[in-house]
Amino acid sequence: MNTQLTNNDRKFLREAIKIAIEGIKSGGGPFGAVIVKDGSIISGSNNKVVLSGDPTAHAEVLVIREAAKLLKSYDLSACVLYATCEPCPMCLGAIYWSGIKKVVYASDRHDAEAIGFNDNLIYNEIAIDPSQRKLIFQHLDDPAAKEIFILWEQYENKIQY
Amino acid sequence: MNTQLTNNDRKFLREAIKIAIEGIKSGGGPFGAVIVKDGSIISGSNNKVVLSGDPTAHAEVLVIREAAKLLKSYDLSACVLYATCEPCPMCLGAIYWSGIKKVVYASDRHDAEAIGFNDNLIYNEIAIDPSQRKLIFQHLDDPAAKEIFILWEQYENKIQY
Repeated sequence: MNTQLTNNDRKFLREAIKIAIEGIKSGGGPFGAVIVKDGSIISGSNNKVVLSGDPTAHAEVLVIREAAKLLKSYDLSACVLYATCEPCPMCLGAIYWSGIKKVVYASDRHDAEAIGFNDNLIYNEIAIDPSQRKLIFQHLDDPAAKEIFILWEQYENKIQY
Repeated sequence: MNTQLTNNDRKFLREAIKIAIEGIKSGGGPFGAVIVKDGSIISGSNNKVVLSGDPTAHAEVLVIREAAKLLKSYDLSACVLYATCEPCPMCLGAIYWSGIKKVVYASDRHDAEAIGFNDNLIYNEIAIDPSQRKLIFQHLDDPAAKEIFILWEQYENKIQY
């Protein structure tokens, strides 16, 4: 879905770009993101995979976690995310789970691939049948696992997220 | 890619199931995961999205982050992940970035959909062209973003991850 881009969109994207550029020399990966709510930036980060030793520490995941902490909620549906590069599948998944409804990005998965990142490969792997992936991905249909969902359905105090 | 399932595979998957079942009554989501290295479980968790208010706190992401912290590395290529349900695209992305080479899971994205989770919807959204998604997903081709990748390529001390 596309809508008109505004001057604010351009301004907030530039902030994410600035964060990425400033971060490289301190050991950050070449990606940045900011989250905006009600016209203000509420979280911003560069990629910190190497700095933190956490493979999930992409800029988008970090700004989502920071914004959720600030808003005391896993629901970020009132927020917009700006990213210097098209979010990878991990980050796009995080965006959907957070309820964010608008993403603006600059470079894309092919630009990232050209400098050695696996974003495009992972997009391709996710789209195919699990049994066809490069990863060993095995379905073990243990009936005990069905008990989890039955218990969940019966649990009166559950909060569906 | 498929290989033979072992008794250890069945045993470790049961541990993930046990964690998910025990977690429901303390407010956890109905999913669990463990990570195994050299034949031993090094991290285990249930889903903590509601408990922590963090939309990225899926069981798989939490065990990856915990294992990375323990091993002091974002590289988990010596590890195997066991999950009570097929990892969602966010978690599958995290698995690829961590280098984990084998995943064993029980329920699948359709079982999760049947109890109200969006895993299958997100798989479908990720596979289509960004402009066609339900989410507003806009490409703003800002030339300033290209500077990030140029700087990265020129940066002598970079660690490719």
